[in-house]
Amino acid sequence: MKPKKLNIFAAEYKKLLEHELRHLIEKLNAPAILKESMMYSLEAGGKRIRPLLLFAALDAFGVNPRNGLLAACAIEMVHTYSLIHDDLPSMDNDDLRRGKPTNHKVFGDAIATLAGDALLTYSFEVMSSIPNEIASPEMKLKLVLEMAKAAGSEGMVGGQVADMEGEGKSLNLEELEYIHIHKTGKLLEFSILAGAILARADQKQLDCLSSFAYHLGLAFQIQDDILDLIGNQQLIGKPVGSDTVNLKSTYPKLLTLEGAKDALEHQIEQAKIQLQKSGLSTNLLLEITDLIASRDR
Amino acid sequence: MKPKKLNIFAAEYKKLLEHELRHLIEKLNAPAILKESMMYSLEAGGKRIRPLLLFAALDAFGVNPRNGLLAACAIEMVHTYSLIHDDLPSMDNDDLRRGKPTNHKVFGDAIATLAGDALLTYSFEVMSSIPNEIASPEMKLKLVLEMAKAAGSEGMVGGQVADMEGEGKSLNLEELEYIHIHKTGKLLEFSILAGAILARADQKQLDCLSSFAYHLGLAFQIQDDILDLIGNQQLIGKPVGSDTVNLKSTYPKLLTLEGAKDALEHQIEQAKIQLQKSGLSTNLLLEITDLIASRDR
Repeated sequence: MKPKKLNIFAAEYKKLLEHELRHLIEKLNAPAILKESMMYSLEAGGKRIRPLLLFAALDAFGVNPRNGLLAACAIEMVHTYSLIHDDLPSMDNDDLRRGKPTNHKVFGDAIATLAGDALLTYSFEVMSSIPNEIASPEMKLKLVLEMAKAAGSEGMVGGQVADMEGEGKSLNLEELEYIHIHKTGKLLEFSILAGAILARADQKQLDCLSSFAYHLGLAFQIQDDILDLIGNQQLIGKPVGSDTVNLKSTYPKLLTLEGAKDALEHQIEQAKIQLQKSGLSTNLLLEITDLIASRDR
Repeated sequence: MKPKKLNIFAAEYKKLLEHELRHLIEKLNAPAILKESMMYSLEAGGKRIRPLLLFAALDAFGVNPRNGLLAACAIEMVHTYSLIHDDLPSMDNDDLRRGKPTNHKVFGDAIATLAGDALLTYSFEVMSSIPNEIASPEMKLKLVLEMAKAAGSEGMVGGQVADMEGEGKSLNLEELEYIHIHKTGKLLEFSILAGAILARADQKQLDCLSSFAYHLGLAFQIQDDILDLIGNQQLIGKPVGSDTVNLKSTYPKLLTLEGAKDALEHQIEQAKIQLQKSGLSTNLLLEITDLIASRDR
């Protein structure tokens, strides 16, 4: 079989994902304003990198990526709820996200808070509703458990708290990595892990893919920091240098720009070694890795 | 075996519950401030009516109520998160709950929001971590699914949105019941359902207990409205007549005080009929029902 090209694969599954997300919200028997608010942020788009990682992981095992559709929707709901709550006035107080007014600017703080709560709750319903032909009860339970761990106080929420606590302080590399590994890394890692669970991976494959996701997550964050310093303002959608203005601890600040570039290269290399070790058909995951290393937005 | 008295049963399981909740938070590897904030509201106390219903439901099947300990913790986490978010300035903006400063008054709005998020997320982790000796994977999956439904946009969160939307409007009985059935009823109902699932109830027993919980939830709410009108201010902990001042739609306002008392009696009667129909040893659930009908706080 001819290896699939990432851009064709990504476009196909992004469309499927967005169609399914809409369907999942539409079928809810809930107040209209709540459904609108949930849908507004789910539709705000973005790179859909977490679902893409899940689909690509399934492809690496030779499993039909469609089997991951509900799990991908659940993960995107968790990601979306976290953005809605992060944008609230009591948190980052952001008025715009990807050029559109944030959820609370459109629906008010109360509905935005509740839409986030509803999306988080729904993600667990969706995950536990995967048909038995696709995943056994044991597999679904593992998906629920690992998603909760990745999203909760020992994962994403913990990272968000550490990020807030670290504001205005000068962090060391260990503290900076704690934040990134938790705030963004854990859910990225779970996206890959979810694919591996659905593909009935063995322990060695699980370990390789977890480690791959860990390095990929750090690479993603280092590149983010580099782009903030030397990126194209129009492409990244925020003023270049905003981290410096906001006194944010970043990789270039701790390691110099050259040091940060070296660290990025090191993480990408480690990620690729893990893919190699897994023994899977990882051409799509490899392409995603290269894309992250070289992305300009 | 001599039937247990409710007050002894309740005291014993309240203690077990609170001990387990503390243990579950302490073991988390998460930022200290987040754990403190989660624990602060979990410890704020209250009647623990949801866990009590779950324990009493297990007792009705002759199953050791201890088997419901983790499920009860999960439900109490969901209830607690909903109180933290409801109290936020963007929602009800309450400074006090049960005589103690609300979570955001102590920890700030951002940490309070995140502590709520973390509790909700953790509830699913706790529910899916029940040992296999107590519940099969299928049973745990059913618990996760039903808890998500009870707590989400088709349950508690949907009821909260409807409640906010109805503020200052004069609602009819159907609209008032929609709010109560969803905002408080669904999670009360799930507490009983969780006991029934853990006790491997058959469909007839499930139906009777669901119906019992539905009527019990409405009775609870009608008595709440009556107490607001004619209760003892010191016992109920808020000024008598505050619903009238706040232009809230209530049962006495829609039905007159006498009509509300009749409606209460009707719901209690219906609840008891369902208990009878279930054929279970429901003396504790009966006592709880009488307690709710006659409570003065």
